[in-house]
Formats: sequence, structure tokens, C-alpha cells
Amino acid sequence: MLRSVAVVLAGLLSPFFIHAQEDSVMMRKIVEDILVRGKAYENLRFICKKIGPRLSGSPGGAKAVVETARMMREMGADTVYLQECMVPKWVRTGRDTAALIMANGKGQPLKITALGNSEGTAAAGLRANVIEVKNFEELEQLKDQVKGKIVFYNYAMNPRFVRTFNAYGDAGKYRGQGASRASKYGAVGVIIRSLASNPDDFPHTGAMSYDSAYPKIPAVAISTNDADVLSNALRKRMVSQVYIKAQCGMQGEVLSHNVVGEIRGSEYPNEVITVGGHIDSWDLAEGAHDDGAGCVQSMEVIRVFKDLGIKPKRTIRAVMFQNEENGLRGGSKYADIAAKDGNKYIFALESDAGGFTPRSIGVSHEDSVKVNRMRAWAPLFENYDVKINAGGGGADIGPLRKLGTVLAGLQPDSQRYFDIHHAATDVFEAVSRRELHLGAGVMAGFIYLVDKYGN
Amino acid sequence: MLRSVAVVLAGLLSPFFIHAQEDSVMMRKIVEDILVRGKAYENLRFICKKIGPRLSGSPGGAKAVVETARMMREMGADTVYLQECMVPKWVRTGRDTAALIMANGKGQPLKITALGNSEGTAAAGLRANVIEVKNFEELEQLKDQVKGKIVFYNYAMNPRFVRTFNAYGDAGKYRGQGASRASKYGAVGVIIRSLASNPDDFPHTGAMSYDSAYPKIPAVAISTNDADVLSNALRKRMVSQVYIKAQCGMQGEVLSHNVVGEIRGSEYPNEVITVGGHIDSWDLAEGAHDDGAGCVQSMEVIRVFKDLGIKPKRTIRAVMFQNEENGLRGGSKYADIAAKDGNKYIFALESDAGGFTPRSIGVSHEDSVKVNRMRAWAPLFENYDVKINAGGGGADIGPLRKLGTVLAGLQPDSQRYFDIHHAATDVFEAVSRRELHLGAGVMAGFIYLVDKYGN
Repeated sequence: MLRSVAVVLAGLLSPFFIHAQEDSVMMRKIVEDILVRGKAYENLRFICKKIGPRLSGSPGGAKAVVETARMMREMGADTVYLQECMVPKWVRTGRDTAALIMANGKGQPLKITALGNSEGTAAAGLRANVIEVKNFEELEQLKDQVKGKIVFYNYAMNPRFVRTFNAYGDAGKYRGQGASRASKYGAVGVIIRSLASNPDDFPHTGAMSYDSAYPKIPAVAISTNDADVLSNALRKRMVSQVYIKAQCGMQGEVLSHNVVGEIRGSEYPNEVITVGGHIDSWDLAEGAHDDGAGCVQSMEVIRVFKDLGIKPKRTIRAVMFQNEENGLRGGSKYADIAAKDGNKYIFALESDAGGFTPRSIGVSHEDSVKVNRMRAWAPLFENYDVKINAGGGGADIGPLRKLGTVLAGLQPDSQRYFDIHHAATDVFEAVSRRELHLGAGVMAGFIYLVDKYGN
Repeated sequence: MLRSVAVVLAGLLSPFFIHAQEDSVMMRKIVEDILVRGKAYENLRFICKKIGPRLSGSPGGAKAVVETARMMREMGADTVYLQECMVPKWVRTGRDTAALIMANGKGQPLKITALGNSEGTAAAGLRANVIEVKNFEELEQLKDQVKGKIVFYNYAMNPRFVRTFNAYGDAGKYRGQGASRASKYGAVGVIIRSLASNPDDFPHTGAMSYDSAYPKIPAVAISTNDADVLSNALRKRMVSQVYIKAQCGMQGEVLSHNVVGEIRGSEYPNEVITVGGHIDSWDLAEGAHDDGAGCVQSMEVIRVFKDLGIKPKRTIRAVMFQNEENGLRGGSKYADIAAKDGNKYIFALESDAGGFTPRSIGVSHEDSVKVNRMRAWAPLFENYDVKINAGGGGADIGPLRKLGTVLAGLQPDSQRYFDIHHAATDVFEAVSRRELHLGAGVMAGFIYLVDKYGN
């Protein structure tokens, strides 16, 4: 609390906040234009409904590159161009199926999805005994007892975390490392409880990776409802075995692209302000909140600057990053180019936490003076019920940290995000136009201030 | 900004905030219990799906009284009782229909709903020319030119208001007074653009009232999409007339009830802390956000106190108010009884703005010292991203103001509320369990503090 008083006082004295009245009027103009005339929602409808799933390396992924480039040209970006990057090509060639084989021999279907980057089962599927563990500690106690079995990690997202990303961070290791940790002891497959904050019938996929020291065993996620079904059946000793069929796997690497739309700065064109989201999604969803929303919000910054005739001093780039979901190749490539092209990458803002009502913008830099200068803009965001926090960023812009870039992330309300994240329920209809546009509005307002006052 | 610094400093010095660490632990315990084990969501499912619409005076309304009383008994409230009140009985006896009669004689259906409290058309319906006005100023210019016609108020909720309740307040007068203002000049009916923040096909009802000086003409709301259809057709002179059939009207008054569940205070039983929502809904909706949510959140306060063994010093009452939508008879009756029963009504908190993520609790009293004492609790709510604001309350608790009660309202995120408010889309599925329970958690935490420190 005393710290927040200090930040407020710092703001009053800051040379980076000397035109409060003028800035407040401009912020209002920007936000209202987006609330009334913004294109983000209709662009999102196109991305979700006319393109649909767009995993890196897939036909949908390629189409999304072409279409978002077109959108930014139509918005009047000075330049629109692609940055080539190689991406892993993970494909799912059939429908994932699973069944509980009861002690009496009867089967009961289970709703599952293969985890991203995982290798599938043999064509005939995999049938084995199942052993449930709550966490890695239990696995480590069982050790070789899991040999020849399917390990079922039944670790739920902890509902006690008010900010759901903390629960996701806590539970994520079972999806990421669960397969190899079980394979080490001879398991033949793993089922993880979906990283979902609600009970429903939709399994949630997401990236996993293998430790090359152990056999690559199949890895699937099960819906939260069916995780409970499976767990209850195991506890009551009603289960004989589980059958899993997952047809998927890695097929090398292919060429893909980041899409960049830019307004060239009038005074300091070599000072680059980046705003972005990732254009790739998982193959089972429209990727509306993750991260179609961040893409259309970032493009909206370009649109509102052009439509309101705001001529930035610095160069503003909206970037549709490629391959955030299963490789981060786009973000890495962007930073690699940035390290060599002679420009100064002063600031980057990512929106990749859903298109929900914006609650805050979080700012990170090792120099807290830079962070506090931006936090001093907080009064300008009070009308929008948005705070400026210390700490935030995004996966795609993360690699810019080594260039000294100030990183920031849009932090929307997180309560609903993990209901739909990486699941078939992440569709356009789950997005509210007002929430999406309000988020785009505060992003554009923040970029306006960074352009005006620098970092 | 300087004012908020002052509030923070007042908090540090306040005698009403002397056990911060202890209170923080208790708040956490309360909120976590509700997030993990809360019953509000399942109670809401029952109210929406097993009872459904529950307009005051309807069979659903009567069933809701019985069932919410049962719920509070099952939660272990010390006493559960009813407060009788007479409510207006407005009924809809048939399906509301309307059609655009094109210049070529063809008809095109329009989606409408009669406004609450309005009188319907003749059994054969009403067919007349239509004249569109943007606002009352245009009506006052037209005056007698509306004679014999249907007036179409096409005033949209203003999307520029970031807080949507301000847009609702701005546009509400057309629904409330539009009929009589047009009837004064001889209009035979009115159509109002639904008070909705999104374009869709669902008309939104809501209360209207007649000025007894003028004939009571039919009054309906049209979906936002069809408002645009009608407006475009009028502009292109493609419309001949509009046909409306609405079968509804007032049928006197009937007996109904507030439902009160109470935990008796151990030290100051005559100091009453009220927490409530309204149990009535419109007849065309499940009333999930409006206001099933507020009811189940208020009951949840009773549940968590009982289940955690918290014995309040003061008397805590959860009140399911009757007839908020079209009469406020329940709230008025509650205050009438309060004025005479010898108890002190020190504080009342209402949740009637939707079951969305809580953003703040707003506190009102003519004595700003009382308000600031409660605002000083703000640091305890930071973990939940909830602020304590000056200004707030609720319609049902409003009549307690004259008794000197400190009034407060839960203020959830408002972006989606008017998409579904008073429309058939206000259903259980539109509510998020986490959002609903987080709201109940901060309400229970606030009530805990009021009980501990008084007002």
C-alpha cells in the first residue's frame, strides 16, 4: 500500500506525464473510436469463421498469414511484410478416441485429445491398465509399478488461486513433462486431466515435450468430467483397462511467417514500438480468445492511428507472431532480426490472455525507473477501470528482453479464460465485442503514450 | 488521485482497520471456501432450470419463495421467514408478434416483446403507420403529426459509456415514459429500440409506467437487429405500416413475499446487517444474472458463516426481495417494517448488477466519515482485484436510506450485462461459476468486516 502511494506521487512529479489533460482527451478519442467504429470484432469473426483453426504449418495457418496481411493493408499500414521462420509441423491425422473398459468387459467412451507435439498410438490403438497419480510425488513413490501401464495424472487446476494464470502455472508441468517422467519408469502412455477451470466435456490440448532420454509415449488430455468418471471408476475397482487411439505426430519442419504491419515514425523511425498477438491456434479450436483476440486488438492499434490521423513519432508495428503454441519460433525469429537490423526496440506490448474485459497492463523491465514512469500514467486509465501494474509481458515478445526492450502485457479478466483455453469451446461466440474493443482501446492508448513520451 | 491518497492514509490510521493481518487470513478463508465448496452456482441452476421465470404474482414467483426459503433452512439459518407484501400482477396471455407491412403489401416478422406493466393491443392486434423519432426532442417537434400512428423510439444505448449502467440510465426514459409522452399527442402505440448493448435478435422487456392523464397505449420493445431493419425500411420508404399484437395487461394486486434468512447476532442482535438480491425476474427469462445471481450470492453469505462456524456479533439477514422489476413493493415493505420493529438497520448490501467478476463494492451514506471508514478496508480486497468505491447501493435497499442505513452495492464487470438484461438470453449458461462465487466471496468478506467493526 505504501508502495502504491509512492508510485502515485512519482506520477505527479514525472516528466513523463506532463500533459495529463491533453492526453486524457486523446485517450478518450481513441477508446471511443474503437468502441463505436472498431473493426476488431468483425476481423475476429473472419479469422474464426472463415479461416478457423490455424496451427503453424497447417493450411489454416498459411491462410491466416495471407488474410491478416490483407487486413493490415486495408487498414492503411505504411508497410506490410512477412518474416520467414521455420516451424515444427505437428499433425493430427484422425479423430482421437478412448474408452474405459469396465471390469465386466463393457466399454464406455471417454473424451480425450492428443497433446500437441505428442506422438500417437499404433494404428490399432493402445490398451493397458491404468494407474492414477495425483502428482509427481506419487509417481516417484510408485516408480517401476507403472511399468506397462498408462499413468493418469489427475491434478486439477487449483480453484483457490483468484488469478487463474497462477493455477495454470501450477498445474502445467503435468502436461509439459508428464509423459517423459512416466516413460522413465516404463509407462506406455499418459492421460492428463485437462488444464481447465470448470467441469465440462471438452478436453483441452496444449504443448508437451519429450525428454529424449526416454521412449516417446502417447500423451492425451481427458475432459474434466471424464477425469472424474475415470477416477471414480478406478477407486471403485470397476475398471479393467483403458483404450486410447491417437493418430498424430511430428512431420519435420516447414516454412511459415510472422506478419508485420507498420506505421513508420515521423521523427524517430528507428525506434520501434511493437504490439502483437500470435496468429497460430490449436487445431481443435477457432482460437478466438487464444489468440485471435490479441491479433485483432493489435491490428486495431494500426487502424485507429490511421483513421484518427495520428502520425506517430516512432515506428509502430503490429505483429502477428507465428507458432507461439508449439515452438515460439515466430517470437524467437522476430528478436533475432531485431538484434541485427540496427533499430532500437524500445517497447513491446502483447495481448495473449484472452479478449475479456481489460483489468490492467503489466510492465516489466530490469530498471524499475522505466517501469514506474509508465505506472505513473495510471490516472489516464482510471476512466477505463484499468490499472498499470509492475510485471507483465508475453511469450512472443519475451525474446526481446535481451535487447533491453520494455515489455508489457494486456491483463484481461482471467476468470473465464481456462474454461475454454485450448479447447473446442474457444470460439468467436465466447467473445464479447465490448470487452474485446475496450481491451484494444486501452492498448492503443498505451501505445499512444509510449510513442509520445518514449520508454 | 490526491483524494485516493487521502483515503489510503485514512485507512492506515483508522480504528476500523486495526487487525489487518487477522482479517486478511479470515477473508482468504471465506473466499476460498466459496470458490471451492460454494453452493451458489448449483442453487442458481435450480432457480433458473427448476423454477425458471418468476415474475411477482406468477406461479414461478410463488415457487421461488418456497424454494429459496428451503435453501436457507438447509444452509442452517437460525430463522427463515416470509414478509407479506402486495404486488401488482402483470400478465402476458399470448405470444407477442409483430410484422412490417411493406409497401408492396408483403409482411416481414419483427421480434418484439411487450413492455412490463403495459396494456396489450386489441385481440385482433394493431395496425398503423409508423413514425420514427431519435429522441423526445424530435417527438416534441412533431407533436400532433404522430396522431393515429405508432411512434418508434430508435434511441440506442450509447456505446461510448465505458460503464454500461450509465448508458442504460441515459436511454431508460424512452422505455419508462415513451408511451405516455407519445399518447399525449394521439399516438396509438409505441415501439422502443431494446435497451441492449449488442446487435442481436432478442427483444428486451422492462418496466414502463403510464401517466394517467393520457390513454394507455400498447408499448413494445423491438430487438436491436430489427430496430435497424425497421429504421432502414422507413428511410427507404419501403414500409407501409406495422402490425403489432401484444396480449398483456395488469390484473390487480396479489399477495406475495420477501424471503428472509437470518443468523442472530450473539452480542448485538438488534443491529441488523442486510444482504440481498431480488427473487423476481421478468417472465421471458430465467433471470440468471438479473437477479438470480444476487439471490444465491446473498444466501451464500449465510452458508459460509454457518459452515465455517463464524458466529456474528450482529444479526445477519439474507433477503430475497420481491417485485423489484415492476413495483419495488418488497423493498418498500422491508423498510416499512424496519422503521417500526425497534432494530437498528446499520448496513445493507445488494447484488443486482449481474453475476460477473466483481470489480468493486460501492458504499453510500450522507456522512462521508462512515463511507471512508469502509473504504479504508480496501487493502483487504486487493488480493481479489476488488476496489471499495464511494457511491453505490441497490433498488431494493434504497428505501432503507431514510433510516440512516449505510447502503452498498456489489459492482461487477458491466460489459456483458446489457447484452442479456431482461431478455430471453439471461440464462444460467451465461453465468460463470468462478465469477459468481468470487462475487459471493467478496460480499461475504465485506459483511464479515461490517459485523466485526460496525458501521
